[in-house]
Amino acid sequence: MGLGVVGGGVARVLHEKRAAIAGHLGKDVVVKSVLVRDPSKSRNDAAPGLLITDNAQDLLDDPEIDVIVEVMGGEHPALEYIQSAIRAGKHVVTANKEVMAKHGPEILTLAGENGISVRFEASVGGGIPIIGPLLQDLLANDMTAVHAIINGTTNYILTSMAREGLGFDVALKNAQELGYAEADPANDILGLDAAYKLAVLSTLAFHSKVHASEVYYEGIDKLAAEDFHYAAELGYVIKLLAIGWRNGDTIQARVHPAFLPVAHPLAKVDEVLNAVELQGDLVGRVMFQGPGAGDMPTTSAVIGDVLGIARSIASGGRPSPPPRLDRDLVIQAMPEVETKYYLRLHANDKPGVMAQVTRVLGDHQVSLASVIQKATLQADGLAEIVITTHEAKESLVQDAVQRLSELDVVKEVCNLVRIEELA
Amino acid sequence: MGLGVVGGGVARVLHEKRAAIAGHLGKDVVVKSVLVRDPSKSRNDAAPGLLITDNAQDLLDDPEIDVIVEVMGGEHPALEYIQSAIRAGKHVVTANKEVMAKHGPEILTLAGENGISVRFEASVGGGIPIIGPLLQDLLANDMTAVHAIINGTTNYILTSMAREGLGFDVALKNAQELGYAEADPANDILGLDAAYKLAVLSTLAFHSKVHASEVYYEGIDKLAAEDFHYAAELGYVIKLLAIGWRNGDTIQARVHPAFLPVAHPLAKVDEVLNAVELQGDLVGRVMFQGPGAGDMPTTSAVIGDVLGIARSIASGGRPSPPPRLDRDLVIQAMPEVETKYYLRLHANDKPGVMAQVTRVLGDHQVSLASVIQKATLQADGLAEIVITTHEAKESLVQDAVQRLSELDVVKEVCNLVRIEELA
Repeated sequence: MGLGVVGGGVARVLHEKRAAIAGHLGKDVVVKSVLVRDPSKSRNDAAPGLLITDNAQDLLDDPEIDVIVEVMGGEHPALEYIQSAIRAGKHVVTANKEVMAKHGPEILTLAGENGISVRFEASVGGGIPIIGPLLQDLLANDMTAVHAIINGTTNYILTSMAREGLGFDVALKNAQELGYAEADPANDILGLDAAYKLAVLSTLAFHSKVHASEVYYEGIDKLAAEDFHYAAELGYVIKLLAIGWRNGDTIQARVHPAFLPVAHPLAKVDEVLNAVELQGDLVGRVMFQGPGAGDMPTTSAVIGDVLGIARSIASGGRPSPPPRLDRDLVIQAMPEVETKYYLRLHANDKPGVMAQVTRVLGDHQVSLASVIQKATLQADGLAEIVITTHEAKESLVQDAVQRLSELDVVKEVCNLVRIEELA
Repeated sequence: MGLGVVGGGVARVLHEKRAAIAGHLGKDVVVKSVLVRDPSKSRNDAAPGLLITDNAQDLLDDPEIDVIVEVMGGEHPALEYIQSAIRAGKHVVTANKEVMAKHGPEILTLAGENGISVRFEASVGGGIPIIGPLLQDLLANDMTAVHAIINGTTNYILTSMAREGLGFDVALKNAQELGYAEADPANDILGLDAAYKLAVLSTLAFHSKVHASEVYYEGIDKLAAEDFHYAAELGYVIKLLAIGWRNGDTIQARVHPAFLPVAHPLAKVDEVLNAVELQGDLVGRVMFQGPGAGDMPTTSAVIGDVLGIARSIASGGRPSPPPRLDRDLVIQAMPEVETKYYLRLHANDKPGVMAQVTRVLGDHQVSLASVIQKATLQADGLAEIVITTHEAKESLVQDAVQRLSELDVVKEVCNLVRIEELA
């Protein structure tokens, strides 16, 4: 379902590698039919002999078809097609992060009831094997953390801001010109794309349902060149982090820009690369890194899933039950989260101002780790004050920031960025 | 089979997580019997109710046992036990890199003939999922390269030599005191351990039999503090690299210290961490990083394999056929390999010496990329000359080095290290 760049790639590669694949599986894998919106469009790249249709029922009713590959994207009608496929007894492979983030648990339950496999490796991290290792190789572990850079567009922009000292708008424009950001980049820039992927990862890692709407997310659009400057000075890089974290029966699931220590492995993941670090009780920390997007990497993941199902069909067994998602963990609301913070503000450069600022923070039980007061900004007589805190509660920090912005001596609270040691 | 730290860990964790695992698989996994050398030794850590025996036949003849876990290590009698288990119709999980590097293809063939699964994730890279992703998630790819740091002991020593400017002997001694190197470190230091693992990885990545004895290996014991100094000056780090590489029907499989560009992801893999970079025609480059050794990471991998087999048993299907190893690729002999080189030598510090040295290289078709002549060494009137070359043929470079060492003006060829851009 879908014959865009990924769908076309899947059809072409399965055709070109048919003999090798049959050798691996002892079973032939053939793409029979493709659902498209407009069957009259010419398609030079597609594999020969494909049946092209704009009627999903042609696929769902075909008894020869064992597996439906959904690579059309978007929530609807992809969701309904996936559900219909499961009910029609077809195994499903999907690359659809939005559908899996919003409806994954219901889809997996439905699949379990119907004895059907649903696989979705390509929905997170493009071609990087993450879901496979999580559900299989690392299954013996109780996972305590997922730390990820899972949006290539924002990682490219943050990398170029850090390296070239660019402002956000210029960096975004450059990324668009290079094809690393879409014309409408909102889903990437604002963190929604990463939030979808984190919902999927957290659900699987913690065996508990995490809906897309339960993931806190915040974009990178408020970061300024100065923030990168201070981050470097303090020994950090700035990344859009997706953090899934479990402590007992409580989990956190949040996506936001964060200061990350330069020595952390994720700090070295630059440009469009993606990486996921998993932390388990047995294995400790493992990290998976690679291309998080792109036609061929995504094709690699989709076909890997198809071959996994084909192997299972060839074995003559029942498909494995879907992953258990029955741990009913509580998702901590963002105001309850405790972490460290970086705060940058402009205030009048005169005696007593620093005392006022620090008193507000103290009043909110926010304890300071470092304070830097930079030379007076030109012309307007303002000083730039940069503060880092020890661990503090998000709600109290937000209250303090609100209170700071109301102080007469404070011109502007320029930015508040969380500091994540990920230790 | 084996109740050392890994065997004990497997028994204990399978016992402690029994309920969770039964939930995941819909099937109970129980450790029934353990083969040990001396059953009279007390074992406080083992799971309750274990049958302890020193007779392998007790396990092989027991119809209740579905899976044999071999974690005794060493070539014999582990090989014979694995073969007997397969013939007795038991699935096998092993962490034994030596057995798999020397006998993997025969074991997998025997397993295929008997409809048995043999899994060995823990034989390479400790707890890091590598073999699973290679054989499953990435199966659609034709792999062209495996670049790996797969020996934690040597990586720890190289990291401390680079960071602290230590000589090899001191760094080794420190590593031994910290428990990162064994009392007899030969297998690690000389590259044999990494060669075993590369044989396994290359065999699977290229679907062609690579026997342990066909892997070229060279240790880190000849590296000196000066080499790290020059590497840094030239923009490289020094790592013990395991390189599997395919070009058409030819492959290379070699383990040796190498200069690696600082910007390469593997250059940032420090201390006891392991990492494997795979390069496939669809996915591009993916890297897996984590703890390459240790009791609990290894336990994680062994249990992951056990659960994979248990899942397959629960599904009621036949086990998947073993990976195909039928591409009869030619392993290039080391003298035929072409790469770049770093050469450090001590020569008389007088006019005409450099001309003599460079003429020898030129006579062997070795073209120079850079030449650094360092200040005269104290007292003995010798200069240190550091040369890097363009790509050249190993045999010609070795001939040239031999010829250089015979020159009257050359006191000593101190070191020859390959430079790998891994581009």
